Amino acid sequence: MVEGFTPGNRSGERILFTPGPLTTSPRVKGEMLIDIGSWDADCVDLTREIREELVGLANSDEDLTCTLMQGSGSFGVEAVIGSAIPADGKILVLRNGAYGQRIEWMARALGIPHVVIEDPEDRPHSADAVGAALQSDPEITHVVCVHCETTTGLLNPLGEIAAVVEQNNRRFIVDAISTFGAYETGPGKPIDFSVGPIDHLVGSANKCIEGVPGFAFVLSRRSAIERCAGSARSLCLDLHDQWKGFETHGKFRYTPPTHVLLAFRQALLELREEGGIAGRARRYRENHDVLVEGLAELGFATFVPEPYQSWIITTFLCPEGFEFWPFYEALHDKGYIIYPGKLTEVDTFRIANIGAIDAEDIRGLVDAIREIQA
Amino acid sequence: MVEGFTPGNRSGERILFTPGPLTTSPRVKGEMLIDIGSWDADCVDLTREIREELVGLANSDEDLTCTLMQGSGSFGVEAVIGSAIPADGKILVLRNGAYGQRIEWMARALGIPHVVIEDPEDRPHSADAVGAALQSDPEITHVVCVHCETTTGLLNPLGEIAAVVEQNNRRFIVDAISTFGAYETGPGKPIDFSVGPIDHLVGSANKCIEGVPGFAFVLSRRSAIERCAGSARSLCLDLHDQWKGFETHGKFRYTPPTHVLLAFRQALLELREEGGIAGRARRYRENHDVLVEGLAELGFATFVPEPYQSWIITTFLCPEGFEFWPFYEALHDKGYIIYPGKLTEVDTFRIANIGAIDAEDIRGLVDAIREIQA
Repeated sequence: MVEGFTPGNRSGERILFTPGPLTTSPRVKGEMLIDIGSWDADCVDLTREIREELVGLANSDEDLTCTLMQGSGSFGVEAVIGSAIPADGKILVLRNGAYGQRIEWMARALGIPHVVIEDPEDRPHSADAVGAALQSDPEITHVVCVHCETTTGLLNPLGEIAAVVEQNNRRFIVDAISTFGAYETGPGKPIDFSVGPIDHLVGSANKCIEGVPGFAFVLSRRSAIERCAGSARSLCLDLHDQWKGFETHGKFRYTPPTHVLLAFRQALLELREEGGIAGRARRYRENHDVLVEGLAELGFATFVPEPYQSWIITTFLCPEGFEFWPFYEALHDKGYIIYPGKLTEVDTFRIANIGAIDAEDIRGLVDAIREIQA
Repeated sequence: MVEGFTPGNRSGERILFTPGPLTTSPRVKGEMLIDIGSWDADCVDLTREIREELVGLANSDEDLTCTLMQGSGSFGVEAVIGSAIPADGKILVLRNGAYGQRIEWMARALGIPHVVIEDPEDRPHSADAVGAALQSDPEITHVVCVHCETTTGLLNPLGEIAAVVEQNNRRFIVDAISTFGAYETGPGKPIDFSVGPIDHLVGSANKCIEGVPGFAFVLSRRSAIERCAGSARSLCLDLHDQWKGFETHGKFRYTPPTHVLLAFRQALLELREEGGIAGRARRYRENHDVLVEGLAELGFATFVPEPYQSWIITTFLCPEGFEFWPFYEALHDKGYIIYPGKLTEVDTFRIANIGAIDAEDIRGLVDAIREIQA
């Protein structure tokens, strides 16, 4: 039991309106009540089932394969950046928020040549600008883009950018940590391995698959991950070596988070039960709509223009004279956990609507905010 | 529930005789049944309590501080190697098993100059040899040693090596992943920050503290971790930056494994209840003695000479005509999970006696082996 824990409104649990860790189902958490051996068939089977299910979720005819990587989503991104860019490679990083900036920092830490296109935090990247950058700098080999910037909730136009990357004969790396599981995949859908040269797409256990935190996953074209052999700038974050371990003996190279994996398999099962990504997208979209309408009635406007707003997380502008932390604490005392803003120039806060929550939970949150405002 | 799960002898659970993940208590696992926000006071308090308790367990008057790092124990080791060795540094890696070899691989992947002293897998490192190596190569700045090689169960003489490192005015880095929590700490004890220049000592959540896997921890001298600023060869595995995050706002830089942390706090509490490390060492030592005696009666001899044998994990020689995998499967069917050997030249298997198990569990395992042998 968490010390100083104040019972919330759902049998003593908090409800998280945060972008991951998020609220998970009791059955997902309940899977963690056993210990399994990391070298045992229990764990080998578990790992194989998870990898196969994730490849299936990509809904693609391409020859895709999956690598799990211990740590947070960023560990998966760094494993890709550090392994997929050859010694003579150069990255174009697209940045309109903190997660794009983090990729820039990774390139710097790893000593990988890179250039950055920086766009305002409320504006998606322009495929035309990407095309112009690629034409003016022939040294660029890879483009890296964050699908949804959790900084704001803004969605970048993956398909348009992928098409331009392909026209310019470069490779594409996607941070889909906050969207995989929430946006449909496949031909003509928001995440589409067939339109462009997506070599690697990174997701995380504790986002829209609704697992608990502890590992990242990477969906890679088999030909692309094979090209990573010997390129890694790290042992632990060597994407190819990790993948080879799975392919040859079905095991993690180093100790896996066994309990987190057990929870994740159950989360994947529940995603199936919900009707796959299409079903989950419907619920998240409804959650988002109820949230934005409810908060609009209470005087909270959104930061990101509507056409670019994801149904993952929403940034709300703080009204004149509004103080965030007392507001946060008051919601916390009612068992609702929201998220502070991450913008430097505008006072904002964020509310995510992903996780094992539905429109009724959102209405509960809106009611709680109304009470606090009264 | 794990698919294909065969009930063992303890209310349907398996008992792991593996070196981590290991068997954890029901209360430790039970802590994972709630979701907490990673930026919330719930998690900030949790992180602070864990870091403080770990520093306390070092039982040292030195100014120590603690950094938690997502991933397995190896992620902690790589974070230290990649952050603590300056651009003009050079490592002496001591190797008498797979974990020493892994450190050599890390140095290679990170492009850090290194030399290796390789000793046979059944022989501890010699402090004299370390001294000679340091005298002959003035470029060496750091010595890295694995306390207990899980490859075999062999214990290296940390104190003697630390003294020689100090005499030669170099710095010492210790991989204590499999021993921290099982061997006493403090002046004159096996893990002693006062005898030598231990700058960083790495442990892991899923070893002798008896938590579940998902993060590593590093105990560092404050002066040593401060010197790591700007030296890291990675963003995610930047030890100093990670530590700064804890020190300045109490948070992980990137998503922490919140459920694993909750379990770990409970594990630390149960370590206290057992009488601290001294109490735990007594239980492990008894487990080990019962195991070795019991298996000796069944004809299994140990690989590591008695003076160097840890009470963590024991390597047993396969008798003439013994087939390991059928033996493993038969034990698995009874709910007992053991560990294969890791030696190339001798047929062996391993049994760990750490985790939430006692002499009665060991006797149960010995009985099961007797039945299988019959």
